[in-house]
Amino acid sequence: MAPFTDHSSLYRIPHPLPLDSGQMLEDAEIAFCTYGTLAPDKSNAVLVCHALTGDQYVASEHPITGKPGWWERMVGPGKPIDTDRFFVICANVIGSCMGSTGPASIASDGAPYAMRFPVITIRDMVRGLVGLLDGLEIAQLHAVVGGSMGGMQALSLAANWPDRAARVLVIASTARHSAQNIAFHEVGRQAIMADPAWAGGNYYAEKARPDNGLAVARMAAHITYLSEAGLTEKFGRRLQDRDAKSFGFDADFQVESYLRYQGSGFTRRFDANSYLYITRAMDYLDIAEEHGGKLANAFARAQARFCIVSFDTDWLYPTAESRHIVHALNAAGAKVSFVELSAAHGHDSFLLEHEQLDRVVEGFLA
Amino acid sequence: MAPFTDHSSLYRIPHPLPLDSGQMLEDAEIAFCTYGTLAPDKSNAVLVCHALTGDQYVASEHPITGKPGWWERMVGPGKPIDTDRFFVICANVIGSCMGSTGPASIASDGAPYAMRFPVITIRDMVRGLVGLLDGLEIAQLHAVVGGSMGGMQALSLAANWPDRAARVLVIASTARHSAQNIAFHEVGRQAIMADPAWAGGNYYAEKARPDNGLAVARMAAHITYLSEAGLTEKFGRRLQDRDAKSFGFDADFQVESYLRYQGSGFTRRFDANSYLYITRAMDYLDIAEEHGGKLANAFARAQARFCIVSFDTDWLYPTAESRHIVHALNAAGAKVSFVELSAAHGHDSFLLEHEQLDRVVEGFLA
Repeated sequence: MAPFTDHSSLYRIPHPLPLDSGQMLEDAEIAFCTYGTLAPDKSNAVLVCHALTGDQYVASEHPITGKPGWWERMVGPGKPIDTDRFFVICANVIGSCMGSTGPASIASDGAPYAMRFPVITIRDMVRGLVGLLDGLEIAQLHAVVGGSMGGMQALSLAANWPDRAARVLVIASTARHSAQNIAFHEVGRQAIMADPAWAGGNYYAEKARPDNGLAVARMAAHITYLSEAGLTEKFGRRLQDRDAKSFGFDADFQVESYLRYQGSGFTRRFDANSYLYITRAMDYLDIAEEHGGKLANAFARAQARFCIVSFDTDWLYPTAESRHIVHALNAAGAKVSFVELSAAHGHDSFLLEHEQLDRVVEGFLA
Repeated sequence: MAPFTDHSSLYRIPHPLPLDSGQMLEDAEIAFCTYGTLAPDKSNAVLVCHALTGDQYVASEHPITGKPGWWERMVGPGKPIDTDRFFVICANVIGSCMGSTGPASIASDGAPYAMRFPVITIRDMVRGLVGLLDGLEIAQLHAVVGGSMGGMQALSLAANWPDRAARVLVIASTARHSAQNIAFHEVGRQAIMADPAWAGGNYYAEKARPDNGLAVARMAAHITYLSEAGLTEKFGRRLQDRDAKSFGFDADFQVESYLRYQGSGFTRRFDANSYLYITRAMDYLDIAEEHGGKLANAFARAQARFCIVSFDTDWLYPTAESRHIVHALNAAGAKVSFVELSAAHGHDSFLLEHEQLDRVVEGFLA
């Protein structure tokens, strides 16, 4: 294993990774960052799980965009997830594209997997993370923490490896993808696959990549990350760099300009095939289904303390989904606290400044 | 003018149509259907305005799809908009593609307009409809009725031609497009324009059309027409024609299959450039802005009776937008009734079976 640094390290899982599909993933590698110092008794590890388009750079500069880590406001010295106290691990999930094994990785035949990469699930991603914890010889985490898809991983760890985390913190997430959730992802996948440059996924050796399709997918998804009121507050019907409508098809409105920027920026740092695989994994998520159809069964062996957090304006994973998790945890007799936070900006609120969220996270980890 | 039949007729507006952009549309043609018999005093005409992807075939078989008219449950003999009593007119809006002048029409130079077609507004569409009413020598409608974009036209008629309708019925609509509304449309437009077959809009002579982009646009929009609860009730996480997940990228879930069907079916009957122009017109809509920034001003000269109807699960044009219209009408001293109907299926409820809606429509037109 590469030495721990504040930069990304790579761990090769020393055994084939069994997947929910029945396939095995050979030679899986996990790219990860760590922050802080692991205590001699290894009792202070906190695993932060990233969202759909996130990565291991939770609190360090992103090597492609040069932007700060995606949760620097939450993770660092003296921050709610305090790296003076905790040894924080954040790993790129398998299927992604920032160093962990995914569709852009080279398969044993020397060519990229592309669409030959096996379809994975959230539980498979967690299998990879557990493989990393094994490599780090961390038997039990102080806590596993995640927002959005990160929360799905935290729940899956709690359900399937109940002794691996003492605390489970799930923010703006769900235990199952709804029809509407699936529908938005399907639009994104169809946008990518409709792009001729996608070429059945075999674009890695080509000059053109399916950037247009990926940008449209990102734009559609981005709308779901923001609340209607947040969009109105942020953009309303304000025009972009002009005094009057152009009576054309340029980005007249600020919200159009913003979405185009989000779409095109995304293609510079993300692989379209990874977007297909990770959205598929999220759509496949139904933790109850994995446990005989009853979510409470999933947490029958849970010993951890749980904290479930939702945002009142999150319409992607609304509070009702968090309540559904809480009810199941209650039915399973687990220790759970639940808080719905008020926030203007919908699902993305977990990534934004939110003092109450900071206090909840800090308090729960204490 | 072609004779009235139950099929589509064509009316050529005998003067250039002035547009909000400052341009003139020469030789504009309006394709329309009529149902019932115009009273000798012309007092029984009801204009039904169609939505984004609708057309003049409100109560007769669609010539391309062979499906029944889009509002046959509402318009016909003995129906709430009773063709035994009323002379019902429904016209394809300019910018569309079912016979009225739009981007696919041939310009004066013998080639299709394509993107040379002027950008139009909802008010421009209504200018075309008023031109048709002039041709029919109908000075005042018994009522103008519309759902969604049809409601926008009804409001625009009331605001700009206040003596042309005695009753104005607006269902599931809005007087302005919100940032979120614009965002969804922008995703659709970008999906179309990202399709290489779009070719800058000049695809009419080509074999390939931007069907992939248009299908993605339709899929994204379609999600907004349905409520989250409606999608869950209709599809949930049920699989399509299989017992287990495929661990692939086929349409495993019924909701995926449904969306793909909606997308591909749409491309057979709709022109991608029309989709660009009509969504742009909707995004430009802000009736208050057209009247000095205050919506009440728009209705200062209104003599009509208004009825505003919303659906509680409509998140595209939520009840708050209808209330906003009602408050403006109240401030203007107009006669207005307002009803929020309970419905499971969101925005599309105005097209579906809904007994209460039938009673409201029938009662208001009586």
